[in-house]
Amino acid sequence: MGGLFLSGIIGVFSKDNQKVSNYIYYGLYALQHRGQASTGISINNNGFIDYEKNLGLVGDVFTSDVINRLIGNIAIGQVRYASYSEKKSKVNAEPLVVGYKNGALSICMDGALANYKELREMLEENGHLFQTDLAVEVIASLIAKYHKDSLIDAIKKALNEVKGSFSLIIMTKDSLISVRDSHGIRPLSIGKIGDDFIFSSETCAIECIGGEFIRDCDPGEIVIVDNKGLRSEMLLSEKKALCIFELVYLARPDSYIDNRYVYSSRFNAGEILYAECPTKADIVIGAPDSGTVAAIGYSKKSKIPYTEGIIKNRYIGRTFIEPTQDIREEGVRIKLNPLTSNIKDKDLILVDDSIVRGTTIKRTVEMLRNAGAKSVHVRIASPPVKYSCFLGVDTPNEENLIANYLTIEEIRKAINADSLYFISLRGLVEAAGGNNGFCTGCFTGEYPIERSKGE
Amino acid sequence: MGGLFLSGIIGVFSKDNQKVSNYIYYGLYALQHRGQASTGISINNNGFIDYEKNLGLVGDVFTSDVINRLIGNIAIGQVRYASYSEKKSKVNAEPLVVGYKNGALSICMDGALANYKELREMLEENGHLFQTDLAVEVIASLIAKYHKDSLIDAIKKALNEVKGSFSLIIMTKDSLISVRDSHGIRPLSIGKIGDDFIFSSETCAIECIGGEFIRDCDPGEIVIVDNKGLRSEMLLSEKKALCIFELVYLARPDSYIDNRYVYSSRFNAGEILYAECPTKADIVIGAPDSGTVAAIGYSKKSKIPYTEGIIKNRYIGRTFIEPTQDIREEGVRIKLNPLTSNIKDKDLILVDDSIVRGTTIKRTVEMLRNAGAKSVHVRIASPPVKYSCFLGVDTPNEENLIANYLTIEEIRKAINADSLYFISLRGLVEAAGGNNGFCTGCFTGEYPIERSKGE
Amino acid sequence: MGGLFLSGIIGVFSKDNQKVSNYIYYGLYALQHRGQASTGISINNNGFIDYEKNLGLVGDVFTSDVINRLIGNIAIGQVRYASYSEKKSKVNAEPLVVGYKNGALSICMDGALANYKELREMLEENGHLFQTDLAVEVIASLIAKYHKDSLIDAIKKALNEVKGSFSLIIMTKDSLISVRDSHGIRPLSIGKIGDDFIFSSETCAIECIGGEFIRDCDPGEIVIVDNKGLRSEMLLSEKKALCIFELVYLARPDSYIDNRYVYSSRFNAGEILYAECPTKADIVIGAPDSGTVAAIGYSKKSKIPYTEGIIKNRYIGRTFIEPTQDIREEGVRIKLNPLTSNIKDKDLILVDDSIVRGTTIKRTVEMLRNAGAKSVHVRIASPPVKYSCFLGVDTPNEENLIANYLTIEEIRKAINADSLYFISLRGLVEAAGGNNGFCTGCFTGEYPIERSKGE
Amino acid sequence: MGGLFLSGIIGVFSKDNQKVSNYIYYGLYALQHRGQASTGISINNNGFIDYEKNLGLVGDVFTSDVINRLIGNIAIGQVRYASYSEKKSKVNAEPLVVGYKNGALSICMDGALANYKELREMLEENGHLFQTDLAVEVIASLIAKYHKDSLIDAIKKALNEVKGSFSLIIMTKDSLISVRDSHGIRPLSIGKIGDDFIFSSETCAIECIGGEFIRDCDPGEIVIVDNKGLRSEMLLSEKKALCIFELVYLARPDSYIDNRYVYSSRFNAGEILYAECPTKADIVIGAPDSGTVAAIGYSKKSKIPYTEGIIKNRYIGRTFIEPTQDIREEGVRIKLNPLTSNIKDKDLILVDDSIVRGTTIKRTVEMLRNAGAKSVHVRIASPPVKYSCFLGVDTPNEENLIANYLTIEEIRKAINADSLYFISLRGLVEAAGGNNGFCTGCFTGEYPIERSKGE
Repeated sequence: MGGLFLSGIIGVFSKDNQKVSNYIYYGLYALQHRGQASTGISINNNGFIDYEKNLGLVGDVFTSDVINRLIGNIAIGQVRYASYSEKKSKVNAEPLVVGYKNGALSICMDGALANYKELREMLEENGHLFQTDLAVEVIASLIAKYHKDSLIDAIKKALNEVKGSFSLIIMTKDSLISVRDSHGIRPLSIGKIGDDFIFSSETCAIECIGGEFIRDCDPGEIVIVDNKGLRSEMLLSEKKALCIFELVYLARPDSYIDNRYVYSSRFNAGEILYAECPTKADIVIGAPDSGTVAAIGYSKKSKIPYTEGIIKNRYIGRTFIEPTQDIREEGVRIKLNPLTSNIKDKDLILVDDSIVRGTTIKRTVEMLRNAGAKSVHVRIASPPVKYSCFLGVDTPNEENLIANYLTIEEIRKAINADSLYFISLRGLVEAAGGNNGFCTGCFTGEYPIERSKGE
Repeated sequence: MGGLFLSGIIGVFSKDNQKVSNYIYYGLYALQHRGQASTGISINNNGFIDYEKNLGLVGDVFTSDVINRLIGNIAIGQVRYASYSEKKSKVNAEPLVVGYKNGALSICMDGALANYKELREMLEENGHLFQTDLAVEVIASLIAKYHKDSLIDAIKKALNEVKGSFSLIIMTKDSLISVRDSHGIRPLSIGKIGDDFIFSSETCAIECIGGEFIRDCDPGEIVIVDNKGLRSEMLLSEKKALCIFELVYLARPDSYIDNRYVYSSRFNAGEILYAECPTKADIVIGAPDSGTVAAIGYSKKSKIPYTEGIIKNRYIGRTFIEPTQDIREEGVRIKLNPLTSNIKDKDLILVDDSIVRGTTIKRTVEMLRNAGAKSVHVRIASPPVKYSCFLGVDTPNEENLIANYLTIEEIRKAINADSLYFISLRGLVEAAGGNNGFCTGCFTGEYPIERSKGE
Repeated sequence: MGGLFLSGIIGVFSKDNQKVSNYIYYGLYALQHRGQASTGISINNNGFIDYEKNLGLVGDVFTSDVINRLIGNIAIGQVRYASYSEKKSKVNAEPLVVGYKNGALSICMDGALANYKELREMLEENGHLFQTDLAVEVIASLIAKYHKDSLIDAIKKALNEVKGSFSLIIMTKDSLISVRDSHGIRPLSIGKIGDDFIFSSETCAIECIGGEFIRDCDPGEIVIVDNKGLRSEMLLSEKKALCIFELVYLARPDSYIDNRYVYSSRFNAGEILYAECPTKADIVIGAPDSGTVAAIGYSKKSKIPYTEGIIKNRYIGRTFIEPTQDIREEGVRIKLNPLTSNIKDKDLILVDDSIVRGTTIKRTVEMLRNAGAKSVHVRIASPPVKYSCFLGVDTPNEENLIANYLTIEEIRKAINADSLYFISLRGLVEAAGGNNGFCTGCFTGEYPIERSKGE
Repeated sequence: MGGLFLSGIIGVFSKDNQKVSNYIYYGLYALQHRGQASTGISINNNGFIDYEKNLGLVGDVFTSDVINRLIGNIAIGQVRYASYSEKKSKVNAEPLVVGYKNGALSICMDGALANYKELREMLEENGHLFQTDLAVEVIASLIAKYHKDSLIDAIKKALNEVKGSFSLIIMTKDSLISVRDSHGIRPLSIGKIGDDFIFSSETCAIECIGGEFIRDCDPGEIVIVDNKGLRSEMLLSEKKALCIFELVYLARPDSYIDNRYVYSSRFNAGEILYAECPTKADIVIGAPDSGTVAAIGYSKKSKIPYTEGIIKNRYIGRTFIEPTQDIREEGVRIKLNPLTSNIKDKDLILVDDSIVRGTTIKRTVEMLRNAGAKSVHVRIASPPVKYSCFLGVDTPNEENLIANYLTIEEIRKAINADSLYFISLRGLVEAAGGNNGFCTGCFTGEYPIERSKGE
């Protein structure tokens, strides 16, 4: 595994210079849930590429001065999540901007390369320098290697050497190119706004800027937009394997990915959770905010009333001073506070989207018990996570995945729940639209791509 | 009307200096919903009062450097909402810190004075200067006028000259004093954490810092905490008249005010809304975020499924660049985006807490219609707002209150709803606990205090 | 002594709103040497007074956003030095802006009140509040006390109760008023730019904004500018007593105060220093930067070549990280570095403007000796400072004045000079123009105003 | 010409981690005059390289938080001047930090490559990417190309392909290496502090941190410091050609370069200026600040008194708001103000270090005339600049060099001087130490390296 992780990406190709950086800015706001570590925009102004990137949220990095400075007719942008293993560093913010034989290129990516280390070593052997830890720097170096070919051929040759999950947006001085890996592991959608084209990780960004969703980019498809319009070539298409976690918790509930509504997938999972394991209780609550939609679905199916159980402070921001251990021990609850009046003496169903390390759900159960819950029955809208993703989701190492080293009954005890039930994999797939075409490796260990030995 | 408006206030009296500014900081985070314009903390360190106040949110104004500098055993803090008529100015941030004949005083307040102008004119006639537009500066001047009396007597005499709604917290070099107006219009609660005492606008701040709620401050009560402990005196008690808007939308749902759970009041209002006007529909949705709790109550009573209908972007922050008119017209929807899959071809119940100007609900109905709703039935969890508050809630002038100049049917047309129903006043009072003891002047025009002529 | 200390003040009265805040901004830049602790501007826009003030330099506090916001036709500004005894606090930045019976007033001041404490106690006894430690707050309270009189009469009555040194600029909604104390202790000049009038502590600010110097404000004079033009009234005129330190080191060398060129006074002092005590040496150097002008004068008279001996780093700024003790001991010399090639094996005359505590000159002599000076003869362009000023110059307490507790020979030993000579008082007065009319209390103990007992 | 321009560089090799970033920080402060556009530090902490670089001054970019974070035993730093042709961009801040086959490298440089474009094209042809416009990125790529050789051999081979002026400091995980081009065009000195070694553009940085100057790095010398101590290898030595502008105005007056005192060179030039063209006048003044030292030398030789003639505002900082054209036309003189009392009715000698475009000296003469000077005789301490440097000094294109298109008499008229004299080249060389060993190409057109055709 290598390069870096979950990201939201967006690109706009326009015939004029008026609103491009605004579109990207608002689009990145809509994609902010995909990464809060760093963000950047690069923009092409008649062949000159200007850019701004930094650690921080979209609202912090881009002041109106910066957005007004970023003028041009083609632009790409990214929000990035920093992985556990990565040092937080400005240098790893994307888009990457490079010069090579054929001019300037700017690239951003959502995904991860399984053979990042091997490729980097091979390139270094050939005398290449690296200035970041980003997978896109390897990809750019491979493209530069084939600079005597046409750009599309160079991209094809470069990506043929690469193994992994990726959605890429590439900007040149006169075109905007998107590529989705051959399994379609990470999402990538195509939209239009007037005569301008948009590529975006999720449809919510297209809708938020007033655009119209056209279609998903297909697995293995290369889509090129330039002054002649939009055209498409195929890299290589393999068995579809959309990361099912996009539907479970990564994507925004108002997005629409590969013909599935994200909200409906979660809502359906809540209904199926009840159907698979019916339980009596006074109320259903969702773990804030990740379990809310499934809890509403559970309530509908079970007819057990849905209620809010925990209030989340909406003002905790970037500059929040974390409480010291000392203060924390006195019971400070800044971010979450239980709604005692709803919880006291009640039998509760607590719904969450997944259990990874088990620490958050444990604290939530404890908070509910302290607020007087009579019983807490935990229901999880995905199967136990037993394997660590190497294709773009920053799950911890397997020794830290609670379902990897404990049985379900042991997890129940560890989190102090009265009962615990995980949805079946079949149930989850059904919730997500019923047919197959998913990567479910984190539950089964079977990934569409071979894990590199070094991982 | 004068002085300034809705605020959240908190004070802590401790025997030592260890955590006081931390308590205030986290308490202000919990009260942030009561005001986002400015915030401040003043703290007493052996008679020297240090303070920090500025425009902005708690997380912006207080860095860890500032909190570490603010050392002492008594402190007060405020978050403030800036009224329509007020210029946003640092000078109007509280707490006010003054020196007078008997030393230093620091004061913060939630509420508004009906006779602010008259009092300020009288004091200016006597040669007083004013450096702010704050009601507390008038109150501090009145206390200074009686500096030959004991402090408590001076406070009593000063507040006897004052008409209005107020919860006050006053810090001297060796004591912390809270006062609630004689009608108890604004809330004020008393808590304990270990041996330390807390005063706070709402119980949520006491709970969030790990404290224990003791009781509400009574209408007209002066509560004094010093090294001898807590004692109480009465200013003047009149008919109880808690602002019912605290329960409708001002307070946090997890607070508990004058023996009422805020969450339950809103949930009950949703149930009663259905009972008063039963309507058939496919789904119930809440206007984000103010209508959510009542919508859940409506769903429970009506058995019509509760669903989320609109997604709110959680990342819009302080430095958000507002879209230009140009961009807005293209349909940019940064803050709110409809969940089309839930809405399309559905008959909807849309629940909100109140209608003031009518502009927000109109935009919400339009967004739902554009997303394909078959019908939109608007249900409001408070009666029509016909009168402008002069006791601390910053409602606009009456000519801007839609219910003041339109009939309900006219409002329905104006907001383009298929039907529109407001809960009855009797229904709202029942939802809020059934008995009386409320100020409902914004619906009826009958306020517990006479409106000043200048207003 | 009380209120606060050395400041630079400026005011502009214009018929239009175009450039007033720009004039003040550039004028404050020219006056920055009079105070680096805080700065502020208040401006009158048709009766509404807006302002900005904060800790920091002019360039830090006033961004172009702020200057563009400050619109109006009358404005005043200040740069302030924070005294030793004062806590650095935003609240003590001027101009003071207050509301009183007759509207808004804004005031700034250079000087200090001898009876500040008595006046403040008297006002507190009458029920007044104070929100700052500034002398101008006392003065504003006294003006408010006489609000039934005309403003000029109120100012006269207020200032009759005040003892001390002061140059004041007062802004009302339609006029700009300057006042200089009856001895003329602090400077205050009047200028014109087109049809606009300027008051300024020093002429350099008038020149820097392209204005023309008209005349000094006379001791005890009140100058009023409004739409009718400029007129003058007398408060009370007493024996002229300009603070001679203005000429020795406070004022900028290109200013012109009470008919004296500042540069010439310092240059002359250097010439007289040589005449009074002729000494042979290889080169003359000035202590950077305060001794430069006198050193040039000394060189001219003595014909001993003037040379630079110490290089000052021009880039040390506001955010400089002070070296730790550890680093300092290794001989780090960030701010000053000797020009070894000029100094080595030379007999040096080192000229400085004054010796207060003696610590700086001691370090300078040591640096020169370490760089190989054969001998260092220290020559001081003012007599020994034996008394602590209470009229606006922030000299330390007398027990910290080296000339108060050591003889000249003892000082010479303490600073490790080969010889030490202070100019005679007669010589200094001659350098400053020859006639009398100075306050020389810091050398003689004889001040024009009685020191308050509390000091 | 390519890569970038005048810089100050410094490196420290220590046996421990205690003070290295402090040394670099204070050293960069001492070198700040060599570049104010951007600055950076990279530091090696047991093989991990951390760094910080940004646009701005040393005091702006490095907060104490940053310096405390930068821990390690080897570090390098740079201050950079941005050339006319370069866009101001963070990406062009040094040190460059790269990973290549043999690990991490960090490099910074003072100088410019004559064959930058050719080398970059050749490398791009081989598939290399570039992420900056820096010459050091080309050099790093060349070193990576020879990664199978030892590092010193790789550096030698890389630099053999390079033409130009450069002083380089290279940091690896266990060594610090300095290289000076074969002509010694840019300065580079070696120092010691305790057991730690220092490389620095100028000796002033060594002295300022308490270190001891050992010797200059020789032209063509590679000096390596590691745990075994300091050793030296030769790249290639050619005819010595130190840039004479280092002595004329680039270096700090307290530095010592290739056995010459910078201060003395300038002082001598002033003396020789008078000797070559004796002129009668009342006073000598220096153009601030660049002409001061030569003016003092002129005064000594001519016996015409040296006087200050123009006061420079020492507070103009980074955030200064430039006056609008409108304001400027009224005669605003924020940065410089004439000392009218010294100038009026005087015959003046005005000394400056050089004339490049002629605009500054023209404004200075005009300012002096407006202040009443009877005559202004301009004397320049370097010959006419007729050629544009391509070896590290950012002189404008030749069509903008006033001496390239006007005769001396025409320049005199253009700047409105009563007379104008430039020192002879022989006189300048004599002032700088008498013997040869200089690059004087900007006066003669004869550079030690061939100018690239593309320039």
